[in-house]
Amino acid sequence: MVSSLRLPALTSLFSPSFTRRSTVSLRRRLHLRPPLAAGFSAQSAASSPTETEDRVDSKKSGRVQDRGSTDRVITPRSQDFNAWYLDVIANAELADYGPVRGTMVIRPYGYAMWEAIQDYLNVKFKETGHSNMYFPQFIPYSFIEKEASHVEGFSPELALVTIGGGKELEEKLVVRPTSETIVNHMFTQWIHSYRDLPLMINQWANVTRWEMRTKPFVRTLEFLWQEGHTAHATLEEAEKEALQMIDVYTKFAYEQAAIPVIAGRKSKVETFAGADKTYTIEAMMGDRKALQAGTSHNLGQNFSRAFGTQFTDENGLRQHVWQTSWAISTRFVGGIIMTHGDDAGLMLPPRIAPVQVVIVPIWKKVDEKTGVLDAASSVAETLKNAGLKVKLDDTDQRTPGWKFNFWEMKGVPLRIEIGPRDVSSGSVVISRRDIPGKQGKVFGISMEPSILEAYVKDRLDEIQSSLLQRAISFRDSNIVDVSSYEELKEAISLGKWARGPWSASDADELRIKEETGATIRCFPFEQPQGTKTCLMTGKHADEVAIFAKSY
Amino acid sequence: MVSSLRLPALTSLFSPSFTRRSTVSLRRRLHLRPPLAAGFSAQSAASSPTETEDRVDSKKSGRVQDRGSTDRVITPRSQDFNAWYLDVIANAELADYGPVRGTMVIRPYGYAMWEAIQDYLNVKFKETGHSNMYFPQFIPYSFIEKEASHVEGFSPELALVTIGGGKELEEKLVVRPTSETIVNHMFTQWIHSYRDLPLMINQWANVTRWEMRTKPFVRTLEFLWQEGHTAHATLEEAEKEALQMIDVYTKFAYEQAAIPVIAGRKSKVETFAGADKTYTIEAMMGDRKALQAGTSHNLGQNFSRAFGTQFTDENGLRQHVWQTSWAISTRFVGGIIMTHGDDAGLMLPPRIAPVQVVIVPIWKKVDEKTGVLDAASSVAETLKNAGLKVKLDDTDQRTPGWKFNFWEMKGVPLRIEIGPRDVSSGSVVISRRDIPGKQGKVFGISMEPSILEAYVKDRLDEIQSSLLQRAISFRDSNIVDVSSYEELKEAISLGKWARGPWSASDADELRIKEETGATIRCFPFEQPQGTKTCLMTGKHADEVAIFAKSY
Repeated sequence: MVSSLRLPALTSLFSPSFTRRSTVSLRRRLHLRPPLAAGFSAQSAASSPTETEDRVDSKKSGRVQDRGSTDRVITPRSQDFNAWYLDVIANAELADYGPVRGTMVIRPYGYAMWEAIQDYLNVKFKETGHSNMYFPQFIPYSFIEKEASHVEGFSPELALVTIGGGKELEEKLVVRPTSETIVNHMFTQWIHSYRDLPLMINQWANVTRWEMRTKPFVRTLEFLWQEGHTAHATLEEAEKEALQMIDVYTKFAYEQAAIPVIAGRKSKVETFAGADKTYTIEAMMGDRKALQAGTSHNLGQNFSRAFGTQFTDENGLRQHVWQTSWAISTRFVGGIIMTHGDDAGLMLPPRIAPVQVVIVPIWKKVDEKTGVLDAASSVAETLKNAGLKVKLDDTDQRTPGWKFNFWEMKGVPLRIEIGPRDVSSGSVVISRRDIPGKQGKVFGISMEPSILEAYVKDRLDEIQSSLLQRAISFRDSNIVDVSSYEELKEAISLGKWARGPWSASDADELRIKEETGATIRCFPFEQPQGTKTCLMTGKHADEVAIFAKSY
Repeated sequence: MVSSLRLPALTSLFSPSFTRRSTVSLRRRLHLRPPLAAGFSAQSAASSPTETEDRVDSKKSGRVQDRGSTDRVITPRSQDFNAWYLDVIANAELADYGPVRGTMVIRPYGYAMWEAIQDYLNVKFKETGHSNMYFPQFIPYSFIEKEASHVEGFSPELALVTIGGGKELEEKLVVRPTSETIVNHMFTQWIHSYRDLPLMINQWANVTRWEMRTKPFVRTLEFLWQEGHTAHATLEEAEKEALQMIDVYTKFAYEQAAIPVIAGRKSKVETFAGADKTYTIEAMMGDRKALQAGTSHNLGQNFSRAFGTQFTDENGLRQHVWQTSWAISTRFVGGIIMTHGDDAGLMLPPRIAPVQVVIVPIWKKVDEKTGVLDAASSVAETLKNAGLKVKLDDTDQRTPGWKFNFWEMKGVPLRIEIGPRDVSSGSVVISRRDIPGKQGKVFGISMEPSILEAYVKDRLDEIQSSLLQRAISFRDSNIVDVSSYEELKEAISLGKWARGPWSASDADELRIKEETGATIRCFPFEQPQGTKTCLMTGKHADEVAIFAKSY
């Protein structure tokens, strides 16, 4: 049960590519920062020969003294999705590797994406009646043991503090992998009467899981998340809450991250131990693997019975509370990268982008410089005052062409170019990140503040919905309706998602996993009309399920 | 040097009162939630007979099934400041004890105070050019050892992870007590040229220090903080930054927390190892002890030399960077409690208060209820729309009198009462938390939204500055100007702060500490005019220093 909030599924079939890229097609040359120092994990106590890790493929040919002296390329997405992902993270400076194997330093540009996620969700959590608080990260080992019978294979993932203040501890402390146990320990002290319910809290915190196969953002030894925990007087209330929160996540994914997740219920096999029901949002990445991007659990009375969390109801009777928990983590940042990026690098939905508009001033002659920079500053000011996130790239260390490539690679939705002729005509040139080349470029947009502001905001809205539409098309063209196991196998072998009626056994479900590598991602909430016949057994089925390989 | 951000000074003279309160004068009776379950630390592996802890003085006489059946009292502040502090934390539900000795659960009301601190500082940090990011909390033990020679007595405070993923680790991992070592490890990889400088980052994080004597908020085994880390090309820039950040903290303390801190420089003895200079803000608590409430360090090149953090300057020469670090922690919440509280409980400055206005509807007859509740809701809506934090306490489980006491105890700055007569006259009664009884109560304030909003906002502003003025008066009447060691000793023995010219030796400073329990809190930035004679040696002194006992 302690693993009930596990975003990275224990059963994950993700198999990282260990092949170091030796030759790459140089689609474009970018003069970027020096390669990240790789291979530090060898120095770490934590590494062992059996442990593997996706690492940024850094050239080790000597430390470079200055940015700009290195040629860095981004592996084309179509050529090697994993290498592309790691190249983007390194070049866009989203994250770096920490000194301890499997840990990640989240750099400002990547952290700003996480802040955009936090800003939106934090408001929604409060609107839906939840309060933030903070629980200690050290949990007595005995708490975890209480739950051990419910958690197959979880203890191998714990980090344990055994020495504190120079002394061996009498009882080992677990570094929080999730907080159900300590939450219930405290809830038991705080909840007495039905008047104390519902108790609805959330915490933003770091959690630690000793993962063997790590990948930046997607699966790291330590990650950041929010974990909601609620206690209710009735099953119905808990169920309503679990559904409400998966709905909050779904809206966030669609409206902010432009990721058309499929929300649904996990199969019994995939429901986390400790939960009566697990709801999930499943996102299709650019390589068509599924990413479990958020989960919400109806925990029933499983934890309240284990921890004796009871209340006196209106009739004076003692009852166990009904609970939920739900979480989204920094994994979601990985989901945004892998949903929208292209060969040129990141492509960020405007509502998540740390920089929504980059302004590149262009001049050749010295006497042009002041006029161009003044106009650029004034445009930047206009847009900042309109509440937009604006970056004016006025360095003279780089050419405009270099800057275009750089900010494209960083995924900035809109670019504004201002040259001497634009200054004369009082207009600017605006390019969209999501429409490459001339097609995405519009000349002669007036610098007049109200016109410019309206134009930019409209384009950002367009890009936001265009990214979502594109992702929906991609998703829908890669989901195949299947009515037999043969069809399912074919769809999976083509890298697609298979959707088909399902009422077969858990054993059949596990067989599919073994034979195809695909798992049931969910029974989607949105179900087709009509009678259904189980793809495996030919018997009646109530629902269709979606099968896919996943991260 | 890893201890350079230590807010709780290693040299702290704080000596908690271990005496359990046996008799208390019942100044007031509050029907509050049941007592916090105490004594759990006995179950924890971490506890040992030599370890002590200030604990909420809970009556253990049986678990109570329902709130309201318990009489809880707050020990008068004048009688036992420490017991008062713990009572307030328990009754106002600011925090509770975690299952592991010395850890703290920050409950929603206490966490909301921390969020108010975060909201303000986070904006200021960004305005001053800093970006948020996140470093892993696990640091290889070898990193800390690098710095060990600089850090007397630090390793006894480390929590060490020795088992990960079921295996004994080759190298122990330190659970972050502060991040200078890992920050410099990464900075060394990221900084190459002067164009990479200044590098200015901040992180909001949890940190762990194995403290033996803990006290909620003031000193806990795990606490929350922000830690800023910057790297610069010159000493002058680093010095400017360190001063800028102590200034940000000072403004925050005055303008938001209404705490008239004294900002200044630490003496050489009190400067943290690893820092060239330490700046501090020192706050006077209600018991007149000093609380070091925030620090900013000019680290010089100490860490950059230890970690080889170098850049190529404009002339092509390799140079070590100049650095700063600065931090404020959840300790500040303790400072707010201990600055403004009184015998009735918390008293919160409006800009920090989780609830700024509480509305208490009053009715006796059933036919009055609807009218009163409608008016109360409408007033609540008006004030919420005006951006205020409003709580409508419309439960019929409690009497108005109980609610008055309860919300006073919770420190809410303004209370609005609405009864049937108020509904008839279209007006409300407003009471100030900071002016007890009838004096603070005004009748007949119009419910008309624009009038009410303006009135409430004005009162909140008044309360904000009144709390600050009161704290300034208290502070100033408890600082004694001294010109000899005898005068200093007398002032300290009276529990006051002593301010006097100082140019004596480190040995003299340590002697004062041994003989009086007081330390130099700082050489204040604001210095009196005129020539000065050292209180100890009679020789010329450039500056006055402030001496006090401290937490």
